[in-house]
Amino acid sequence: MSDIFVHPSGICESDDVGAGSRVWAFAHVMKGAHIGENCNIGEGAFIEGGAKLGNRVTVKNGVAVWDLVTVEDHVFLGPYCVFTNDRIPRSHPDYRTGPDGWDPTLVKEGTTIGANATIVCGVTLGEWSFIAAGSVVTRDVAPYSMVAGNPARRIGWACRCGRRLPESSTCSCGLGYRLEDGQLRPA
Amino acid sequence: MSDIFVHPSGICESDDVGAGSRVWAFAHVMKGAHIGENCNIGEGAFIEGGAKLGNRVTVKNGVAVWDLVTVEDHVFLGPYCVFTNDRIPRSHPDYRTGPDGWDPTLVKEGTTIGANATIVCGVTLGEWSFIAAGSVVTRDVAPYSMVAGNPARRIGWACRCGRRLPESSTCSCGLGYRLEDGQLRPA
Amino acid sequence: MSDIFVHPSGICESDDVGAGSRVWAFAHVMKGAHIGENCNIGEGAFIEGGAKLGNRVTVKNGVAVWDLVTVEDHVFLGPYCVFTNDRIPRSHPDYRTGPDGWDPTLVKEGTTIGANATIVCGVTLGEWSFIAAGSVVTRDVAPYSMVAGNPARRIGWACRCGRRLPESSTCSCGLGYRLEDGQLRPA
Repeated sequence: MSDIFVHPSGICESDDVGAGSRVWAFAHVMKGAHIGENCNIGEGAFIEGGAKLGNRVTVKNGVAVWDLVTVEDHVFLGPYCVFTNDRIPRSHPDYRTGPDGWDPTLVKEGTTIGANATIVCGVTLGEWSFIAAGSVVTRDVAPYSMVAGNPARRIGWACRCGRRLPESSTCSCGLGYRLEDGQLRPA
Repeated sequence: MSDIFVHPSGICESDDVGAGSRVWAFAHVMKGAHIGENCNIGEGAFIEGGAKLGNRVTVKNGVAVWDLVTVEDHVFLGPYCVFTNDRIPRSHPDYRTGPDGWDPTLVKEGTTIGANATIVCGVTLGEWSFIAAGSVVTRDVAPYSMVAGNPARRIGWACRCGRRLPESSTCSCGLGYRLEDGQLRPA
Repeated sequence: MSDIFVHPSGICESDDVGAGSRVWAFAHVMKGAHIGENCNIGEGAFIEGGAKLGNRVTVKNGVAVWDLVTVEDHVFLGPYCVFTNDRIPRSHPDYRTGPDGWDPTLVKEGTTIGANATIVCGVTLGEWSFIAAGSVVTRDVAPYSMVAGNPARRIGWACRCGRRLPESSTCSCGLGYRLEDGQLRPA
């Protein structure tokens, strides 16, 4: 753990943080959290003990990653995007459903979650999907999909470079794709 | 105040916090705030001096409860849900309406406010209502209502256990309800 | 810098902060940030080194103002409103577009951004515009416009005092306006 950086006003209690990762001011990584290499844990972020982050994940300011949330490599978590891990939370002890309401969330490789988006638990965000800022995601998102709105719906397809794909399915960055059975794949 | 917990990185300036309540890292409870027993004030939360919280209120990370907001017993405030207390805020001193724009918010017993929901001031959220994640609430919410969207509209009814009720109005948890004059009540 | 206030739990690293400005707990003003006079930087706010704020700007709790965001005088940034500065963020080093995706945001004098609103970068919010709580702004907003929703659309016009204007275009506060070529201007 000699090659990680923790800001003097940050807190890192996990001993499972990969080389090159940084934890900024007022951020808090709890004991047990797994964080890969070269991650950037932004100011005020919170990583719960059961959360798992792959390599080179960007966690912008104010993002909480809870128990039951798994974030694969190269994911971008935009500022103040919000996860959940209980579908039916209540505070009254007689009515809390507990494990019945808990639901995992899986964010696959390369995904971008835009600023202030909300991810209702129990969903999978497919590889390289792009969740527009302010979206409220309530169901699975297919790989390479671009979704927006409340509730979020697919508005197009995203390139690995983040740009929205034109009809031709060849991005201005040069990458090409083909649509097969309703799923986009690299050409 | 010997039986409350304040994280070393949290700040509690109120002397009106009930037994068993906990204040986590980077959270701040201001002088004058009333907090009942067994509340959980999550990381980064902010409780202003004029705010009132009942017993066993769950305040998840990043929630600010302002002056003029009253939260009754057993309420669940989901992560990063946002309150307001001024309908027409401006920063210019010549145009600030001040008290004219201030409006109270009342969150009745047992309510759940979902993650990242926005509650525009001046509303009452009825007992056991359920505000879905990402909702933007601009008007009163009836007891046991489940609301979602921007602006939030009623999409169904919620059981005390948090589940959405089926047509039959008997929840899978066993609790039964009846609809009377458009209002849901326990059977 | 003798006449600014920094809370003991706040961090101010900029030497370009105007007289009378205040930085509250767990807020962080980075080196290089320009902040005018009599600004209020709320708890947990974050002002990046390239951000520019005019005079008497109100930054409520939990707001991050990034590089490339310029905020003019007398702007009200409501609690937990969210800015961005990259239209197409990705975390994978091979696919990050970098400067190609960066886009500035300009918030003109007197504007109000409501609580938990999301401002997608590359837009200008016109003088005295009013962005309702929870809005997701994806395009320019005309001066004095009131916008709401996801995506945000114009729902009316706002007075300098923050109130929504009646059809007559004379506000209850006494200020009058005229509509000219689809733009509202003081009468």
